[in-house]
Amino acid sequence: MYSFQELIAQFVQQFDQQHFPQEPATLYNAASHILKIGGKRIRPVLALMGNELFDTIHADAWQVGNAVELFHNFTLIHDDIMDKAPIRRNNPTVHTLYGEPAAILAGDAMLIYVYECLNKVQARYKQKIISVFNKAAIQVCEGQQIDMDLEAMDPAQVQYDDYVNMIALKTSVLLAASLQLGAIIGGGSEGNQGHLYNFGKNVGIAFQIQDDYLDAFGDPEKFGKQQGGDILANKKTFLLLKALELCNPTQRTRLRELLDSSPDDKVPQVLELFHDCRVDEWAEKEKERFQQKAFDSLEEIAVLSARKKPLQELADFLLSRQQ
Amino acid sequence: MYSFQELIAQFVQQFDQQHFPQEPATLYNAASHILKIGGKRIRPVLALMGNELFDTIHADAWQVGNAVELFHNFTLIHDDIMDKAPIRRNNPTVHTLYGEPAAILAGDAMLIYVYECLNKVQARYKQKIISVFNKAAIQVCEGQQIDMDLEAMDPAQVQYDDYVNMIALKTSVLLAASLQLGAIIGGGSEGNQGHLYNFGKNVGIAFQIQDDYLDAFGDPEKFGKQQGGDILANKKTFLLLKALELCNPTQRTRLRELLDSSPDDKVPQVLELFHDCRVDEWAEKEKERFQQKAFDSLEEIAVLSARKKPLQELADFLLSRQQ
Repeated sequence: MYSFQELIAQFVQQFDQQHFPQEPATLYNAASHILKIGGKRIRPVLALMGNELFDTIHADAWQVGNAVELFHNFTLIHDDIMDKAPIRRNNPTVHTLYGEPAAILAGDAMLIYVYECLNKVQARYKQKIISVFNKAAIQVCEGQQIDMDLEAMDPAQVQYDDYVNMIALKTSVLLAASLQLGAIIGGGSEGNQGHLYNFGKNVGIAFQIQDDYLDAFGDPEKFGKQQGGDILANKKTFLLLKALELCNPTQRTRLRELLDSSPDDKVPQVLELFHDCRVDEWAEKEKERFQQKAFDSLEEIAVLSARKKPLQELADFLLSRQQ
Repeated sequence: MYSFQELIAQFVQQFDQQHFPQEPATLYNAASHILKIGGKRIRPVLALMGNELFDTIHADAWQVGNAVELFHNFTLIHDDIMDKAPIRRNNPTVHTLYGEPAAILAGDAMLIYVYECLNKVQARYKQKIISVFNKAAIQVCEGQQIDMDLEAMDPAQVQYDDYVNMIALKTSVLLAASLQLGAIIGGGSEGNQGHLYNFGKNVGIAFQIQDDYLDAFGDPEKFGKQQGGDILANKKTFLLLKALELCNPTQRTRLRELLDSSPDDKVPQVLELFHDCRVDEWAEKEKERFQQKAFDSLEEIAVLSARKKPLQELADFLLSRQQ
């Protein structure tokens, strides 16, 4: 079996290819741009690991890996248009470089290429592969829409459970489905597929809570982002939504005043309120709660513990990030 | 066998259903809007007819019909965003009603649902069905990009063959592929699938030439559009590109002056130039040329002539339009 680091290296090498024709260049240069600026390639590696949990890696797992990575990049292109984001991974976004029409089309073409990859898998499980993939793909779209719907709402009106559901749809179900797709190819049973899916989904939610936490409380030098970027952008996060719920009326009034204004010391002031209502402690516990759910699901999978080691290591790596 | 009119009626009845979940409403109301404002449903009926050319209609042909109709509507949603079109079929476009982000996502979700339909067809020809569909789907995206590329060029620099290729990609290959997808389900041979594909592709090109012709020379009351709408919009059409090629230097100078300005009598003046360089006669012959290619391909299909009758009638209907 391979470690997740080895599989990432193998996937990156395999994925570093010409995915599209040369012409029309305006279309395919736009599509290629997002692939060239890198990314962690976590999803395809989850597909490979989901396969290897049950059996040696089959060629089909690489096709599924290509499919989920292309799909993820398709969502990035279109999400960046919707969010009017100028920068992604320190590079101009696709629509910034090539214009919105070419960026919309580049995403569309990339989504069709996803199914070219999926269409290469063996006939005996093709129906199941496409079905599991489609369910997650639809949920990712729904998650993005719900995210936009919640962004348009007053934060005090957003229910915590609705927010968790949105995060799960937008970011976790594709991680979960990538694992399950690999498990299908590896011959994992329906039950084991389900446990593996739940493992991936809960790791994803825990990771997002950690990401929100680090944005607020992480060491900016280690985290590589401006501290409190989410606070400055008034972004709805696990911390903000829970803080509005946990704090007392005086704190809530102060927090809402800070949300409605942009004083120079907005970040330290909001962070102080977060501390005061102990939302930092809550976030650590909430992350651990989802992490525990993930590990319980991993435990349930009926294969030798030794086979689960790479998944355990990947989860530990993702969830012990201090930077 | 059924006439194309009967199949349209049957398809419309079958297609008039809830295609998407209720929630999130912002996403699925946007997607449903384009389906509710109608359309000729030509592509799915071509899939049904392609099947029935070789055998009685199989349930899978309806799924393929749903897929090609959803795909066509997905392209309309995204094309309307790219073209900044406010109106489609006398209704506000999806992005006008729901905003660009929801319209982008509605198209994306609709494209995933396309593959939900395709995933329902029998395993024995699923690989082929998705492969033929994907090829056409990619070509439609490429055609839209080439269309945008050509629109940005000076009309005198656009090669006629490049324009025909763009039209074929953007509008004809999906008609052709719809027929072929039906033929696959009906058990048509590879050779017969190819002839049927060529029939559809050439009918599509002939139809587009006729459409350009009617926009310029059709009776506006019968045609239902403003006469010379393409001329007013300086749209590149078969007529304009060929006129620039056929006319003498004096006429060309005058035509270019008219393109660069917008006098009140622009339409009659351009039409007079079109007449003078006989581009109207040329267009009728060019349409007939593609129509003849289509009928030659139909002739080549190795089934009883009687089975071809509905396709012959549909082509005659589409290509004898005076209004």
